[in-house]
Amino acid sequence: MTQQDAHATPENAAIEADDAKASSGKFSNPQPLSTGPLPASRRIYVAGERHAQINVPMREIDVHPTAGEPPLRVYDTSGPYTDPEARINIKSGLPRFRTEWVVKRGDVEFYDGRVVQAADNGFAKGAQLTPSFPVVNRPLRARAGRAVTQRAYARAGIITPEMEYVAIRENLGRQKMEGAVPAAGEARAAQNFGAAIPDVITPEFVRDEIARGRAIIPANINHPEAEPMIIGRNFLVKINANIGNSAIASSMEEEVDKMVWATRWGADTVMDLSTGRNIHNIREWIIRNSPVPIGTVPLYQALEKVNGVAEDLSWDVYRDTLLEQAEQGVDYITIHAGLRLHHIPLTVPRIAGIVSRGGSIMAKWCLHHHCESFLYTHFEEICDIARAYDVSFSLGDGLRPGAIADANDAAQFAELETLGELAKIAAAKDCQVMIEGPGHVPMHKIRENMTKQLATCDEAPFYTLGPLTTDIAPGYDHITSAIGAAMIGWFGTAMLCYVTPKEHLGLPDRQDVKTGVITYKLAAHAADLAKGHPAAQMRDDAISRARFEFRWEDQFNLSLDPETARDFHDQTLPKDAHKLAHFCSMCGPKFCSMRISHDIRADAQKEGLASMAARYRESGDLYMVQNGSFD
Amino acid sequence: MTQQDAHATPENAAIEADDAKASSGKFSNPQPLSTGPLPASRRIYVAGERHAQINVPMREIDVHPTAGEPPLRVYDTSGPYTDPEARINIKSGLPRFRTEWVVKRGDVEFYDGRVVQAADNGFAKGAQLTPSFPVVNRPLRARAGRAVTQRAYARAGIITPEMEYVAIRENLGRQKMEGAVPAAGEARAAQNFGAAIPDVITPEFVRDEIARGRAIIPANINHPEAEPMIIGRNFLVKINANIGNSAIASSMEEEVDKMVWATRWGADTVMDLSTGRNIHNIREWIIRNSPVPIGTVPLYQALEKVNGVAEDLSWDVYRDTLLEQAEQGVDYITIHAGLRLHHIPLTVPRIAGIVSRGGSIMAKWCLHHHCESFLYTHFEEICDIARAYDVSFSLGDGLRPGAIADANDAAQFAELETLGELAKIAAAKDCQVMIEGPGHVPMHKIRENMTKQLATCDEAPFYTLGPLTTDIAPGYDHITSAIGAAMIGWFGTAMLCYVTPKEHLGLPDRQDVKTGVITYKLAAHAADLAKGHPAAQMRDDAISRARFEFRWEDQFNLSLDPETARDFHDQTLPKDAHKLAHFCSMCGPKFCSMRISHDIRADAQKEGLASMAARYRESGDLYMVQNGSFD
Repeated sequence: MTQQDAHATPENAAIEADDAKASSGKFSNPQPLSTGPLPASRRIYVAGERHAQINVPMREIDVHPTAGEPPLRVYDTSGPYTDPEARINIKSGLPRFRTEWVVKRGDVEFYDGRVVQAADNGFAKGAQLTPSFPVVNRPLRARAGRAVTQRAYARAGIITPEMEYVAIRENLGRQKMEGAVPAAGEARAAQNFGAAIPDVITPEFVRDEIARGRAIIPANINHPEAEPMIIGRNFLVKINANIGNSAIASSMEEEVDKMVWATRWGADTVMDLSTGRNIHNIREWIIRNSPVPIGTVPLYQALEKVNGVAEDLSWDVYRDTLLEQAEQGVDYITIHAGLRLHHIPLTVPRIAGIVSRGGSIMAKWCLHHHCESFLYTHFEEICDIARAYDVSFSLGDGLRPGAIADANDAAQFAELETLGELAKIAAAKDCQVMIEGPGHVPMHKIRENMTKQLATCDEAPFYTLGPLTTDIAPGYDHITSAIGAAMIGWFGTAMLCYVTPKEHLGLPDRQDVKTGVITYKLAAHAADLAKGHPAAQMRDDAISRARFEFRWEDQFNLSLDPETARDFHDQTLPKDAHKLAHFCSMCGPKFCSMRISHDIRADAQKEGLASMAARYRESGDLYMVQNGSFD
Repeated sequence: MTQQDAHATPENAAIEADDAKASSGKFSNPQPLSTGPLPASRRIYVAGERHAQINVPMREIDVHPTAGEPPLRVYDTSGPYTDPEARINIKSGLPRFRTEWVVKRGDVEFYDGRVVQAADNGFAKGAQLTPSFPVVNRPLRARAGRAVTQRAYARAGIITPEMEYVAIRENLGRQKMEGAVPAAGEARAAQNFGAAIPDVITPEFVRDEIARGRAIIPANINHPEAEPMIIGRNFLVKINANIGNSAIASSMEEEVDKMVWATRWGADTVMDLSTGRNIHNIREWIIRNSPVPIGTVPLYQALEKVNGVAEDLSWDVYRDTLLEQAEQGVDYITIHAGLRLHHIPLTVPRIAGIVSRGGSIMAKWCLHHHCESFLYTHFEEICDIARAYDVSFSLGDGLRPGAIADANDAAQFAELETLGELAKIAAAKDCQVMIEGPGHVPMHKIRENMTKQLATCDEAPFYTLGPLTTDIAPGYDHITSAIGAAMIGWFGTAMLCYVTPKEHLGLPDRQDVKTGVITYKLAAHAADLAKGHPAAQMRDDAISRARFEFRWEDQFNLSLDPETARDFHDQTLPKDAHKLAHFCSMCGPKFCSMRISHDIRADAQKEGLASMAARYRESGDLYMVQNGSFD
């Protein structure tokens, strides 16, 4: 069954605006899921060559016929929700198209999964209990002794459908687009800090990067609804959006909506950081409906199971939680196994101590028991579970700095050394690994983070939160951190964890999630440009041409957030006729530099560039001869 | 008369909310000026030592008594508007405290100024004419043959009151603040790319930097209302906010309000980019009420005087406009004199041609007349006018790139060479000069801009628009550009011209102006941190301590935008009691890493750091011995 076929299966009913509301009386969120295509856009699918069953989604944006340009292809994280052909019903979940690929490999088995316990949902009962997801799927696991990770296959020389899928996805079909692939031997102008991005991503390149541990495809065999994607410094920079209810506020329906909403605007992965009650059930709803990999911090749920008393955590509780989440299909987990007992005193001189939730919980546990954490001592067993489901690791930086003053300190870098050791253990078990990074770091200390991480962790993908480049702007920390994120993305970070305007202050709402996602998309894209990704600039050029040619509709449609761009334009010039105007409200018609530029260009063409150049060249200006057009 | 005295002069009536509205029937803006102190803040004045008459404004922010910390002093651009003692009346303007300083130098004369002409206001008549500012001041100019620029005095070895003023202002009184001045010989960790920021700014250092042309104090002798400030790479990074009506929308009252509003949030200078009618009168209202230097682009008004026909511009019209603006008190002017005839064909291969309004107008003129621009050929005469009023130059980059594809191209750098030549001519005339920079530049090409500018223009201050690091996010260009602005500020740019969310789309409203200013303040501050400004981190540390100690009110008050920070917090936890809570809505009480950190720290103190360290040191961890606290 192809993905497209699956979308049209008859058992999926068309979405209804109040579908979610109808299924539970306590649903508080009046917002229906946002579905349907973005303006002037269409979701297309590109078939595989090696693996005929794969259909890789992309978005094509049409431009005005006067442009004389083909539609622009852009990376699409939105899943079937933007495909008008797809039938969406959150109660049945997305099509499980990848199960077939997994089963075909012959190294997995279905089995009766762990029985859901009251503790999994924080002992919520009756009206307080979020309804279970209506469909029960038997989980898959590796047959005894087998590793079913993409890394294991990569090392065995196998190019999986997932690998071909991400290769096609990264290329956006640019083999066929003029100018999108540099000519042989053509130097790219960018500065890549040692990245090695090929002109065209091949499935073999993907396999090699995964085998070396330089990239991961987070793809739990029990999350067959997700569209494979790759995280590594030689690929497009990715972004993660955090969602999750907390003990204080928000509900499951809001979280599913946030997930769909975040992927609509470009989130490559979503982390469910829910705490409090109903964690199990909320997560099930999210995973079953998520087209992107889902990450979690299993420690949060484990802590709920011991009533929030950090000291009562144990390997048994954690192990049980890990299995629970692996069976549900969590694609990657943050695990704070690098925080060692002797690191903790290093945080005492800090201004902000330990700001990672998981880190502080484990630090408390370590101090109370005066021994190394069970995450560290049981790390090999954790790897054994992960390799049976292909749960990727995001080795958490429990000691990341939470203030400018604490950046790059002894505590942070001591933990990083341990993360490097753990990455080696995971590698030996064929597990996929990325490494989490800070936090709050002033600009001049960002590069050191990247350099140390690459050296310490054998180039495992770096996954950073921001970093925030100053502490003084709460309410604007999506921006203080976008500065750091763009820079560290350029230096080599593979995935950027978004920060919303509510950081440090409150829970992000829908608008905050969108603002965070768009801000991080632009930061990731700025990094792709600076790293010299061969196709990144195509979108900049397309939008700049539209701007120069006063194709207002195209300028909106080609932008990361067409709604906002249009709305801002219309606040000053609301009439439809203004969308054809050869000026905008900023300068008005008389002062429009672009209109004047067109006049100049028209003059130049009339006169002929050659004769114009000949006349000007007499002046002997140095630059004249450097510019090919006038030679 | 001191500045403080002036604020209390009886002829100034207390502000009335609808003061502006009352003076004209067509005032469209219902928003009264925003006056009064920011939360927990007070405007203080620090007296001069050399020059007893100077009183340098700063803002002190109080913190909660439990912090045991003195108030934090921060740079204050807001002028008397945040001083409850000041009487504000926009019809009489701000106190003209600097006239006394200027007159005392004995090299100026009052004279009868140019008579305002109908063309100055675009021939607006009757109800269309913005009312004249009610007070007429006779202008000052240099006595024949004298240069009254700060640079002339600096070269003559004179430390003016303006120079001492900015020295005190830059230091924020940090000589008296613990930790704010590095101990002798203490290395600062930052990376400064050749900047030479001293531990304490002395008036002599200011004089020397101005004499060398590495810094400017834009301070027209006819704008005595403005509080002196300095622009140079060895000082705090400054930001400029653009305001201005256009032919399409907005009124004079909105522009005055925007100016007051922009400086309230931190704009160090304001550029009035008005076009259309009423330019003269609107500008007079702005200057007379502005506590910060005002910049303009005289070409815009000159073009209005020739009915918008670029080809009809002439040296006479421009010269007349320059005199008009110099008499009014414009502190610095953008002048596109670097755009030469032979540069223009270099823009033809560009995606976005010429995107500078002034640049495109001059390019059109040059092509039409087939000769060099009157700005270039008359540049020495322009200098003669500028030195008679101390109008600083902002040498405009008429060929700045307006698209990622056009960055750092032959056209841009050819013009930069000419700007370097003009800077030398201006220097020979004792004029103060800064150089404008791009534009749209991907991250990996930003550094080259800074390096070339420093080399080409003898380290004259660089004043950049962003740069925007990608073209794909209209609606978010305050962010795409903040990334570039923070980086180029770090590399050495002295002043950053803000970009609002409306860039490329529409006219910024009040909220956009605020968003632009706060965004650029945080970018400038991130640059100050990375450059190693010795006092920059004090504010980060103060806010981080407040955060760690759950002093929510302090966290709001110390931030760049207390209103937004508080509002975001209260959206989730609205009750006053929550401002005392030892957790926030993001994690809730059980998961609060900072609360747990406190527990850990309390444990550490109970046990004694020494014994704790001894125990952990046995592990032989490398990092342990590097951390002073545990040796």
